[in-house]
Amino acid sequence: MKLLITIVQDADAPGLIKALSEHGFQSTKLASTGGFLREGSTTLLIGVEDSQVEAVKDVIREKCRTRTRLITPGVPMAEAPDPFLAQPVEVRVGGAVVFILNVEEFMKV
Amino acid sequence: MKLLITIVQDADAPGLIKALSEHGFQSTKLASTGGFLREGSTTLLIGVEDSQVEAVKDVIREKCRTRTRLITPGVPMAEAPDPFLAQPVEVRVGGAVVFILNVEEFMKV
Amino acid sequence: MKLLITIVQDADAPGLIKALSEHGFQSTKLASTGGFLREGSTTLLIGVEDSQVEAVKDVIREKCRTRTRLITPGVPMAEAPDPFLAQPVEVRVGGAVVFILNVEEFMKV
Ligand code: NI
Ligand code: NI
Ligand code: NI
Repeated sequence: MKLLITIVQDADAPGLIKALSEHGFQSTKLASTGGFLREGSTTLLIGVEDSQVEAVKDVIREKCRTRTRLITPGVPMAEAPDPFLAQPVEVRVGGAVVFILNVEEFMKV
Repeated sequence: MKLLITIVQDADAPGLIKALSEHGFQSTKLASTGGFLREGSTTLLIGVEDSQVEAVKDVIREKCRTRTRLITPGVPMAEAPDPFLAQPVEVRVGGAVVFILNVEEFMKV
Repeated sequence: MKLLITIVQDADAPGLIKALSEHGFQSTKLASTGGFLREGSTTLLIGVEDSQVEAVKDVIREKCRTRTRLITPGVPMAEAPDPFLAQPVEVRVGGAVVFILNVEEFMKV
């Protein structure tokens, strides 16, 4: 058995948890901040059989891939005479860091 | 040495932490939600010598066993003319999931 | 690769996270309480190459060493005629507990 300690952006966490559940994988959510990703990260504990690790990794890659999003800075036009200031800017979102650990023993009560 | 990542119901956590402490085992509590158990789970980190793993598992089994509890739904009698609606219902509480990991090295400062 | 699950006092966490970052090590902060240390602990996940483990341990030792601090109990003089009650008392602060786990596989999305 393996334990995947998975750190994702807060914004991606609900979609990832839902997708994992739909694929039959349970996860436990820990509150976390900063670090491997930008502010506002969520750490998930996902325990699965060795044979399922690749399937879980697929779901994580699918739901948390690094992508860009266009954000228009909220600058009032009157205070931003320079039109470049009102242009949407591209920000990177998503991403995930996964530590896969060997589970020596598993107990369910 | 082993690290037991232990997920229990919030309601069982204080009793488990107290029992672990009385048996000489320290634990660190992480806030967590959902997943392996119903909403409101607590994740404990418990580090112990290999020879103590069975004793810790005994305490967890003792304090977090899955059991049923009778709950009477809070339905006002006037709105529940069917007497069956006022019957207590049995709900399952408790349970625990424990991932036991090998600790390569331990440092105490 | 290794994962260092590091439990420190809340008061030491910001300084440790800053020092780790200055040494090029990223960390993810989990909210935690009690246990290995007095109330108010922070748990950090720090993933590093095997060759960097000693450097991370040095930073933790430097920033979280157990030390004493003098604290003057906030007792109003009028209510503490015994001069010993107004003496500063020495309290121990700091300390850290580190579980170093082997990472079987690491994925970054
Ligand atoms: Ni899919
Ligand atoms: Ni007992
Ligand atoms: Ni230094």
